[in-house]
Amino acid sequence: MTIRIGIVGFGYWGPNLFRAFSAHPDFELAAIADPRAQAQAKARALNPRVALFDDGAALIAKGSVDAVAIATSVGLHYGLAAEALRAKKHVLVEKPLCTRTEEGEELIALARRNAVTLMVDHVYVFHDAVQKIKDLKTTGELGAVSYYDSLRVNLGLFQPDMNVLWDLAPHDFSIIDHLFGEEPVHIEATGYSHVNSTLPDIVYVTAHYPSRMIAHLNLSWMSPVKVRRIAVGGSRRMVVWDDLNPDERLKIYDSGIETQPEDERSATLPTYRIGNIYSPRLPGAEPLARLVDHFGRAIAGAASPVDGAAGLRIVRQLEAAQKALDKSLASVAGRTRTTARQP
Amino acid sequence: MTIRIGIVGFGYWGPNLFRAFSAHPDFELAAIADPRAQAQAKARALNPRVALFDDGAALIAKGSVDAVAIATSVGLHYGLAAEALRAKKHVLVEKPLCTRTEEGEELIALARRNAVTLMVDHVYVFHDAVQKIKDLKTTGELGAVSYYDSLRVNLGLFQPDMNVLWDLAPHDFSIIDHLFGEEPVHIEATGYSHVNSTLPDIVYVTAHYPSRMIAHLNLSWMSPVKVRRIAVGGSRRMVVWDDLNPDERLKIYDSGIETQPEDERSATLPTYRIGNIYSPRLPGAEPLARLVDHFGRAIAGAASPVDGAAGLRIVRQLEAAQKALDKSLASVAGRTRTTARQP
Amino acid sequence: MTIRIGIVGFGYWGPNLFRAFSAHPDFELAAIADPRAQAQAKARALNPRVALFDDGAALIAKGSVDAVAIATSVGLHYGLAAEALRAKKHVLVEKPLCTRTEEGEELIALARRNAVTLMVDHVYVFHDAVQKIKDLKTTGELGAVSYYDSLRVNLGLFQPDMNVLWDLAPHDFSIIDHLFGEEPVHIEATGYSHVNSTLPDIVYVTAHYPSRMIAHLNLSWMSPVKVRRIAVGGSRRMVVWDDLNPDERLKIYDSGIETQPEDERSATLPTYRIGNIYSPRLPGAEPLARLVDHFGRAIAGAASPVDGAAGLRIVRQLEAAQKALDKSLASVAGRTRTTARQP
Amino acid sequence: MTIRIGIVGFGYWGPNLFRAFSAHPDFELAAIADPRAQAQAKARALNPRVALFDDGAALIAKGSVDAVAIATSVGLHYGLAAEALRAKKHVLVEKPLCTRTEEGEELIALARRNAVTLMVDHVYVFHDAVQKIKDLKTTGELGAVSYYDSLRVNLGLFQPDMNVLWDLAPHDFSIIDHLFGEEPVHIEATGYSHVNSTLPDIVYVTAHYPSRMIAHLNLSWMSPVKVRRIAVGGSRRMVVWDDLNPDERLKIYDSGIETQPEDERSATLPTYRIGNIYSPRLPGAEPLARLVDHFGRAIAGAASPVDGAAGLRIVRQLEAAQKALDKSLASVAGRTRTTARQP
Repeated sequence: MTIRIGIVGFGYWGPNLFRAFSAHPDFELAAIADPRAQAQAKARALNPRVALFDDGAALIAKGSVDAVAIATSVGLHYGLAAEALRAKKHVLVEKPLCTRTEEGEELIALARRNAVTLMVDHVYVFHDAVQKIKDLKTTGELGAVSYYDSLRVNLGLFQPDMNVLWDLAPHDFSIIDHLFGEEPVHIEATGYSHVNSTLPDIVYVTAHYPSRMIAHLNLSWMSPVKVRRIAVGGSRRMVVWDDLNPDERLKIYDSGIETQPEDERSATLPTYRIGNIYSPRLPGAEPLARLVDHFGRAIAGAASPVDGAAGLRIVRQLEAAQKALDKSLASVAGRTRTTARQP
Repeated sequence: MTIRIGIVGFGYWGPNLFRAFSAHPDFELAAIADPRAQAQAKARALNPRVALFDDGAALIAKGSVDAVAIATSVGLHYGLAAEALRAKKHVLVEKPLCTRTEEGEELIALARRNAVTLMVDHVYVFHDAVQKIKDLKTTGELGAVSYYDSLRVNLGLFQPDMNVLWDLAPHDFSIIDHLFGEEPVHIEATGYSHVNSTLPDIVYVTAHYPSRMIAHLNLSWMSPVKVRRIAVGGSRRMVVWDDLNPDERLKIYDSGIETQPEDERSATLPTYRIGNIYSPRLPGAEPLARLVDHFGRAIAGAASPVDGAAGLRIVRQLEAAQKALDKSLASVAGRTRTTARQP
Repeated sequence: MTIRIGIVGFGYWGPNLFRAFSAHPDFELAAIADPRAQAQAKARALNPRVALFDDGAALIAKGSVDAVAIATSVGLHYGLAAEALRAKKHVLVEKPLCTRTEEGEELIALARRNAVTLMVDHVYVFHDAVQKIKDLKTTGELGAVSYYDSLRVNLGLFQPDMNVLWDLAPHDFSIIDHLFGEEPVHIEATGYSHVNSTLPDIVYVTAHYPSRMIAHLNLSWMSPVKVRRIAVGGSRRMVVWDDLNPDERLKIYDSGIETQPEDERSATLPTYRIGNIYSPRLPGAEPLARLVDHFGRAIAGAASPVDGAAGLRIVRQLEAAQKALDKSLASVAGRTRTTARQP
Repeated sequence: MTIRIGIVGFGYWGPNLFRAFSAHPDFELAAIADPRAQAQAKARALNPRVALFDDGAALIAKGSVDAVAIATSVGLHYGLAAEALRAKKHVLVEKPLCTRTEEGEELIALARRNAVTLMVDHVYVFHDAVQKIKDLKTTGELGAVSYYDSLRVNLGLFQPDMNVLWDLAPHDFSIIDHLFGEEPVHIEATGYSHVNSTLPDIVYVTAHYPSRMIAHLNLSWMSPVKVRRIAVGGSRRMVVWDDLNPDERLKIYDSGIETQPEDERSATLPTYRIGNIYSPRLPGAEPLARLVDHFGRAIAGAASPVDGAAGLRIVRQLEAAQKALDKSLASVAGRTRTTARQP
């Protein structure tokens, strides 16, 4: 069975979806919607047979598609997804699913009511490195996980309607959601808006989990070098994933810290081990290709780690982080109001 | 004039002070105090002519020294420093100066009253890389500084009476104090105690400054790899200092983000530049050798960037960070109390 | 004026030429020739309007093209290029131009006689890093160049009809030809055939130049890691080009060795400097796109650094290196004939 | 039994021997000989109880030592070692053992005749990484070894009486000797003298072995960056040893190339594997400390991988490489004589 897919939004990410859906035998790229003439020209050059629309509503109504992938700016996700679900289209939404918990709950309900699939493009869940870390977790090789520490910084890519939290944190929240299956009990956040006073461009998030794991995200659009470095510390092994080092993307350290039972913990110094380092060969398949394949199987009935419920959990965490961020920024603003700006 | 110096505490750092003072022509290493037989044997092997004492009080009283360097565990700093200052000895204290603001104020007063020099071993202030960044700041080449971001992690080195905040944050606070001459208006901190429930081994600190600069410290004793990476972002240039890369310790990026005047900031997207990278040759002199030389000049009357007042500022910031950390940990504890531990 | 181009050979490199010619406004991709059904299917998928041929002769005869790009296995270069030139087509040949000096001379003569352009796809000549090093040479910033040292190794990519010398050395020979405008006075080579006894898979080449520069190439298909590292040593500056480090592809070391006049050279020890390191931002344009653009301008009459004469010089050097390699391998074989193979 | 040791030559390497012998319980540092006042002052500062001599002959005659370590310039090795052996002292000679095969043979004979130990300070044989590679070879994990490829370059360290071949090649030749137990059947060498016309400062050596292994050494005093990178290629695994990367000094690649039986080798393309990477934790003991310990055990009768016979094999290979180098340089000189020098 071929699934006819339409893409709504053909800016930065749309062409990637185009390529991935075109390459998959179960999908047929049938329609693209984007109001910009340049985007339409680009789509036409890539494949002259695809139907073009000026807006998503038209594509949903007249595109004769089975499924819709939504890659617009995040503010439009909810409205377009709701419309598509009501029209009984399967929906893949670019991350994050939406901007408010209530919207996410409604989208999940709409998908259920219309018996169609709702999925979020949390593409890192399908990354080789995440799957390998998940294996280490499942087999017990990692041991009890103490921390997840992410340095996710680069220069620019400012977006007019989204701050760095909503841009970058969905990656880490979805990875943690998939790896550990936990939701934070407490989220702290702070940061600053250097460029645009309403859109923080540096944000630090710390999340605390029921298992006592701590997650920390260092997110920035202000770094001269791009870094994508995630460290995961377990009691038996620690992992460093450097996504920009193609030769050794994942390093597994046979290092760990022996922790004592709770009641003895304050009494003695810990012992720690530094051991061998192991860098497994990763298959190297493109995460987006896997996600597209997975979308096909989800439409056919398979369960998904990035379904609407997962998307909603990530939105809930983003909201909590935003709330903590707002509170911190307000607190700082109160203290600096009377201070002169650095010349 | 030769300054007769005594070292109190001959554990991890004492031998480094020994070497540095021995190599300086203005100092004579006259006495060492440490109760441990092994430490005394080590001192004797290094130089049989140095007088040995079982405790600092004895050295101060009978060591016939002009100056004392205190390298004991941090809890003893205040008492020993006060005793030495009262005995009119010049004092160099290992970082941090002490554990409470009041103690620091008293030490400063004692030094003034007894007309002797009080200095803190904030050794990074004398590091080539810090001096180069200071130059870039002073000449305006950095532009307005937006952020200071420090990743300072390694495995172990747990200490029985000190958490990772008091162990590692003094480095960053003293570097910032020296580079920017600002004190934070607000400090946030969180973290966790994986090994010893009373001593956090991972701590995240965020400090906000009057100039609107934000500083963030990622401090950990739980990392399988040692990292010492500090990034400083200015409006004209950005700097990354990787202290473990001897060939290119400091990289200066000709990158920056053009910020608009405050009232126009939300209207437009910023422009950013990615340019050349420049890695200056650093002289390579040992920071501790410079600090020892500087201590000699401070005794002779020179002003010092690491005097008692600087030491006190750092202690005040540590106290504020500890208070924020305690509050965060209590808040987390309240939320996880009813949650089962990860198996 | 649009130049109608045909591509002969649609295996590994052909699709890159397809993409580059398609993207250039002065060229129209008109025809592709390849006997393999799979290659034709791939071409058809990329652009259904391109005429397909089973062999290059047919394309040249009936493809109504102005120019031909030849990307077949190297043994076919000469015959196809000669045929195309006789048919008054402009010709771009994949490197190396051909396998024998005489063939190269004939191709140059054919191009002259038929008043068409002959160019070789020595694509590194159009690489940012080469252009930057050329600038440093031209302005005198490099000083007198002492050495060119290339480590060009990877795993596999064995080809049935070509050894590692003919596969990889054309890159270095063409870079040297472009940078320094010299031909070697003496070439030495050695190596070994680990996999296929008639096709060396590790080759070491040393070339000596009139200016006293020495060039050394370490070429291998037997390395577990891919390395592309070229060092160029001048009397005033040294350059290291690491083509697999996208952030800092080129590092310019303000290091040099002061050489004395010839007659004093044995008398004294040299002085050397280690200075700053500078990593210039490179524009990042794709070398192949530049070469295609350049081919268009060469057809319009511009002079080319990779014309037939340049291609011939590289073939002449490959022949000399092959001769030296054969001699060395024969010499080694004579000495090992009676020796048992390692178990 | 304590062995009284004297060190002859207290320049660059002598203090390292001093430190290593002083730290070993079986040795007593009894005497040092060096004509330079500065060297004697340095020795006195390190240990005032050591007897000082102006020359090695005096130390051997009157130093009442059991053993002598010779760390003078290489031209003096033979004479001093012969004198010490005749005086029935055990002798450790800095590498290389001497400058001519005949000298080496005589030293071996002298040691045998006087029933004392002769050892060469080929310190890399005691390096963790070499011992690990040796293990991989012995257990068969490496498979049949195809190549040994060494990049051993840095800036400067020019010596007035030694070229880069005799300075750096002893390391590789002794490592190969220890790892593989083979002597080359054929050695090729070339290079150039950029600074001092009689002392080549860049040398390339290729050695061919009975097992068909090929070894290549890229030796230079003209590189702006220091590199110590040795790759060893086996049919089952490949190893890269980067001695300047303390975190991951040794990487073992589960990569290999399947070779066919000799008579089928030209028929088919090889298959190759790229697999996991493994970086074993190395104990980290100092090679020199191990060598000193080993010297003590050799004096007590143990066999040594770096005995006089090993030293002689390395000298023989250096002589063969020097002969090949001279021949190549003469050949190049003949061709460039009439060529003008680069301005």
